[in-house]
Amino acid sequence: MTNRLWIYDTTLRDGAQCEGLCLSLEDKLRIARQLDSLGIPFIEGGWPGANPKDVQFFWRLKEQPLTQAEVVAFCSTRRPGRTAANDEMLQPILSAGTRWVTLFGKSWDLHVIESLKTTLEENLAMIRDTIEYLRSQGRRVIYDAEHWFDGYKHNPDYAIKTLAAAADAGAEWLVLCDTNGGTLPHEVSQVVRDVLAALGTRANSLQLGIHTHNDSGVAVANALAAVREGVKMVQGTINGYGERCGNADLCSLIPNFQLKLGYDCIQNEQLVKLTQVSRSISEIVNLAPDDHAPFVGLSAFAHKGGIHVSAVEKNPLTYEHLEPQKVGNIRRIVISDQSGLSNVLAKAKTFGIELDRQNPACRQILQKLKDLESQGYQFEGAEASFELLMREALSQRQRWFEITGFQVHCDKVGEDCTALATVKLSVNGTNILECAEGNGPVSALDAALRKALMNFYPAIAHFYLTDYKVRILDSGAGTSAKTRVLLESSNRQQRWTTVGVSTNILDASCQAVVEGLEYGLVLENQEAIPLVCRVH
Amino acid sequence: MTNRLWIYDTTLRDGAQCEGLCLSLEDKLRIARQLDSLGIPFIEGGWPGANPKDVQFFWRLKEQPLTQAEVVAFCSTRRPGRTAANDEMLQPILSAGTRWVTLFGKSWDLHVIESLKTTLEENLAMIRDTIEYLRSQGRRVIYDAEHWFDGYKHNPDYAIKTLAAAADAGAEWLVLCDTNGGTLPHEVSQVVRDVLAALGTRANSLQLGIHTHNDSGVAVANALAAVREGVKMVQGTINGYGERCGNADLCSLIPNFQLKLGYDCIQNEQLVKLTQVSRSISEIVNLAPDDHAPFVGLSAFAHKGGIHVSAVEKNPLTYEHLEPQKVGNIRRIVISDQSGLSNVLAKAKTFGIELDRQNPACRQILQKLKDLESQGYQFEGAEASFELLMREALSQRQRWFEITGFQVHCDKVGEDCTALATVKLSVNGTNILECAEGNGPVSALDAALRKALMNFYPAIAHFYLTDYKVRILDSGAGTSAKTRVLLESSNRQQRWTTVGVSTNILDASCQAVVEGLEYGLVLENQEAIPLVCRVH
Repeated sequence: MTNRLWIYDTTLRDGAQCEGLCLSLEDKLRIARQLDSLGIPFIEGGWPGANPKDVQFFWRLKEQPLTQAEVVAFCSTRRPGRTAANDEMLQPILSAGTRWVTLFGKSWDLHVIESLKTTLEENLAMIRDTIEYLRSQGRRVIYDAEHWFDGYKHNPDYAIKTLAAAADAGAEWLVLCDTNGGTLPHEVSQVVRDVLAALGTRANSLQLGIHTHNDSGVAVANALAAVREGVKMVQGTINGYGERCGNADLCSLIPNFQLKLGYDCIQNEQLVKLTQVSRSISEIVNLAPDDHAPFVGLSAFAHKGGIHVSAVEKNPLTYEHLEPQKVGNIRRIVISDQSGLSNVLAKAKTFGIELDRQNPACRQILQKLKDLESQGYQFEGAEASFELLMREALSQRQRWFEITGFQVHCDKVGEDCTALATVKLSVNGTNILECAEGNGPVSALDAALRKALMNFYPAIAHFYLTDYKVRILDSGAGTSAKTRVLLESSNRQQRWTTVGVSTNILDASCQAVVEGLEYGLVLENQEAIPLVCRVH
Repeated sequence: MTNRLWIYDTTLRDGAQCEGLCLSLEDKLRIARQLDSLGIPFIEGGWPGANPKDVQFFWRLKEQPLTQAEVVAFCSTRRPGRTAANDEMLQPILSAGTRWVTLFGKSWDLHVIESLKTTLEENLAMIRDTIEYLRSQGRRVIYDAEHWFDGYKHNPDYAIKTLAAAADAGAEWLVLCDTNGGTLPHEVSQVVRDVLAALGTRANSLQLGIHTHNDSGVAVANALAAVREGVKMVQGTINGYGERCGNADLCSLIPNFQLKLGYDCIQNEQLVKLTQVSRSISEIVNLAPDDHAPFVGLSAFAHKGGIHVSAVEKNPLTYEHLEPQKVGNIRRIVISDQSGLSNVLAKAKTFGIELDRQNPACRQILQKLKDLESQGYQFEGAEASFELLMREALSQRQRWFEITGFQVHCDKVGEDCTALATVKLSVNGTNILECAEGNGPVSALDAALRKALMNFYPAIAHFYLTDYKVRILDSGAGTSAKTRVLLESSNRQQRWTTVGVSTNILDASCQAVVEGLEYGLVLENQEAIPLVCRVH
């Protein structure tokens, strides 16, 4: 393969520096297996020795190895004034037992003097010694040149010396790191060209890599620029997780390289798993996925306007830069007040319902949609409620239960605040009155409804609410205004969103909770689950 | 100024295509004023005629003009087979009364034939006629070449003809749009060079612009690439809002151009408002801000403990690509008191209060702030609450009244829903019990409080609530999560925002209502009103 590009994932090490992200050992193992299934060739596992969790991680992977990926241990050069063999910091790296080790060293004279508090010569010796020692222990070495671009800008001669030291000591890859993320693409291109020229004949026996951060909003472009100059390894993280503004996002890089620039990174059959891997990993790390993420986001191939929709249905190229299926994503037709009949038809299709333009139900759905939207309902973010509406128009809506009333009582005395809800409902002709407390009025309502329904539909025990959003419709009317509530529910495999509108925020919330439970039951009891609701 | 670059904001038009983003007329006006204060020279207001809200927007701005920005109306070329003067679609554009109009036309032959269903010749005539007509009506024209890059790739000769037609008809700017967002930076560079060559001498009398989307994760880099080839106008949106994966983010572009590439976009004194504008707009559109956004994100300059911190304190350059103050952001040292203190000092300064680092009240505010922020309070968008907190620490908070408890009761029977609130409070030692109904629980609470207080403070009769926003803090916990309520109040001259946090949405709302009334009384009774609370 002449056009081979090596993807190096550092989600488990550099990605874990992301504020708000915290990985257990099990999380790390699950992520590693996801990356392995995606065909990522190098997975950086962490710094064994710096962290007991990381030691265990490597041991667990020795017991149950990955199928294809090289798992890589990460560490720094030996400390000043020691020998590599005598620096006990390096022992856990060896006992991690990986074939490959990534060693990072200082490229920037300022950091050598201010952070390491040693001489420029000793830093070169530290790089050389550590690599030679690792090589003598049978390890293959990737050298990460930390702060490469800043170091090169301030003292190019010295920076080049650090790379030469690593190359001469036997590192097989030299990775140029933009640690502070301040470099722009045209600078990356120029510096890579300089490096190749400066390394001269050495450049033939080794390969360059690139590691970028997103502080200037161009991490992906910087990696693209480097590869266009001949770099063969690209480091990044899934969903761009990382310190400050994150690392280069592999979910953008891989499709750009593979589908647009013709490089071989992973198999095309693996590439179609990209969206699923991105979303699974965001679930594992428990961070809300970015709906607007390139290629893999929920909105990445979403279409709003009417003309737009009919055009994209006829010829997707007119409004899509590539086929969403290639990265495992799907086209979504967004329903909004700009919707025409073609939007409704297209939307129905995504739910697996083939509607005929002549079908009177079609016009009925459209009319109902317009009526509800003029009242302030919005189905753009509430596809589950829209599907229930369509089922109703098509006489396919099952009435699992009917709510006939509720009461909510909140009482605040001093600092204590209590909430109690009573619901009245009927299930298959049986009237039920149930009540529950909650730490707020909506959770009390939700609890009372579940308590009432659990005996009839035990599946409800597995549903839970994952997000709750409120928007005032006619702001200017303040608290008398109409409220729109969007509620996201989950059954651990799928997520769905429902909507409620009322001047009373509790009434709006109750509508959304009720439809959330109803849609959950639809999913439980249906073979043909619409794809759009399954992918998450 | 030889290095002038014109920033063109399209948050209100293209940004509003963002899924989940829905702007009221008031929202649009508030955003326009924020952009104006930031010094953005061109603000695209919308498509009058396509949308009645957009017509009103332009009228309202005629009544109360912006201070420096040109507000621009947006529309398409005349329809096939008409004359521009006879196409009634163009009339609302003229009655919007803007000096500048942005006209978009088709560059891609495929779209001319498939979407417009007309001939390539007629499309050229449509571009020409419409621009000539707008010019004859005294308008200056920016021509947006829709789908430029895809069109040029498929049929470069025809694409160039469309630009030439626009230039010859009198457009002053030709903007190259990557509508589908599929183009990569090296392609942008090449195409811009081609365009300049193809336009020949025409290129001297007009200027080029660039409009990019983020579907490939390189919207910012594409705009940078175009500018490096000589483009002088850059279109984008605040926070990168936009359809699918969004538009180029002006919050990344402006600092890159101004601080890294030496272009003049806005004044440096305006650039320091960037973070505040980014966050205010995210509050207005009610979308959670991206903490990891370059330059303006909460984590953009966050440093974790250890060596890193002391290094960055000694020499910020070691771990920061630029000084956060330049874009109005702050360095955050996670788990450090010191960072919090500068935070408080910085925030106090925004209220026009110069606090001395040695003042014990400072530490007290800091401690209170930390306690409240750890509970989920956020004062970015609730300056009135923060001022009350500072007044308290400085022993300048007057207790107009004290609320000791409330009860809220909602009852839904069939379609009817009622809400009743009882409040207990004391005013100057007098205990009061009052109740009121409302069309929802929050308006009932608000009504009961006003009823109770009106006898003591008649000014309250003039206060009213203008906006109410709810956000869930730990999404994932669903309706059991903590709720943050932001409430905007007005006395017809001024507007102010207060915050409340609780797991109980009514408790959070009540806190915000109470502080809203209190702050209104502060304003009524004070000569020196801090400027920041008056500006909206």
